[in-house]
Amino acid sequence: MIKRIAHIAIVVDDIDAALCFWRDGLGLDLTHVEDVPDQQAAVAFLPTGESEVELVKPTNELSGIARFLMKRGPGMHHICFEVDDVEACLDRLRAKGIRLINETPTIGTGGKKIAFIHPEGTHGVLVELYELTPEEQLLRHERQLGLADRVLHEGQVMTAAVMGFLQALVGNGDRAN
Amino acid sequence: MIKRIAHIAIVVDDIDAALCFWRDGLGLDLTHVEDVPDQQAAVAFLPTGESEVELVKPTNELSGIARFLMKRGPGMHHICFEVDDVEACLDRLRAKGIRLINETPTIGTGGKKIAFIHPEGTHGVLVELYELTPEEQLLRHERQLGLADRVLHEGQVMTAAVMGFLQALVGNGDRAN
Repeated sequence: MIKRIAHIAIVVDDIDAALCFWRDGLGLDLTHVEDVPDQQAAVAFLPTGESEVELVKPTNELSGIARFLMKRGPGMHHICFEVDDVEACLDRLRAKGIRLINETPTIGTGGKKIAFIHPEGTHGVLVELYELTPEEQLLRHERQLGLADRVLHEGQVMTAAVMGFLQALVGNGDRAN
Repeated sequence: MIKRIAHIAIVVDDIDAALCFWRDGLGLDLTHVEDVPDQQAAVAFLPTGESEVELVKPTNELSGIARFLMKRGPGMHHICFEVDDVEACLDRLRAKGIRLINETPTIGTGGKKIAFIHPEGTHGVLVELYELTPEEQLLRHERQLGLADRVLHEGQVMTAAVMGFLQALVGNGDRAN
């Protein structure tokens, strides 16, 4: 039912400063920084193994993440698990009387289903459940194709530039001889 | 350099109560609960994907984990990454002026090398680095062999019991006829 730790979210007050440790010091790769209006936050994504570290900076002073930052300072905010079936998981938790934040899943970017469990029910940890949907898989595939296209295009542009440079060199060489 | 999230440690005041959520509600498997004198704690291990959730209960009121629990209540305590080379990682962090807790790795159960980075250096998160050593790989292999032996032995005992039961049934059948 639980497949993996999808991500660990860490609240920070300055993404660039935090990257000095997480990317430059620890050596994680940064894929991108994204504005996530749903969460009223900017998020830096740093994959590691089958999981991700996410650095989350509030972009609005009234959000839950902003209040967490003001109250507790920077630190671990929540842990997200990928599950096969969010609804089934919520049903099971509800049957056990565990306090939920979302009684039904909300729909995030790319159609993914997410739901939060209240720290009261988990012994102090805000837990997110996340179900990858076919739409999101398609979106990821399209993103990869887009990236591949850009790399290919930039590669071709680069090759043309290098060829031009080499031809110029050869031309200069011919003139020098 | 960083291979994966090895574990997320969650401090709890009652392992059995916490298992009602993490094992019974969420559905993670519990492999075992172990007394870890180095950490002055009892630890429940719940693997998920390539990582583990560890529920940590202090067994001593004076330990760092006990103080964390008293001050902040139950919750996420630290995140541990498996790395190729702990010393190289510490060298790089030291060169960047990042505050460490362990200047050199300590040797844990099975010879594994571990070192903690101070939350001041990571933007609020206690981070553990962990290097799997050949000794630990051997120890894990031996544990698996031991487990396989027990399963095999119990299987044989069970088979013998079932065979005895079936023979008794056939005997009764013979007598009934």
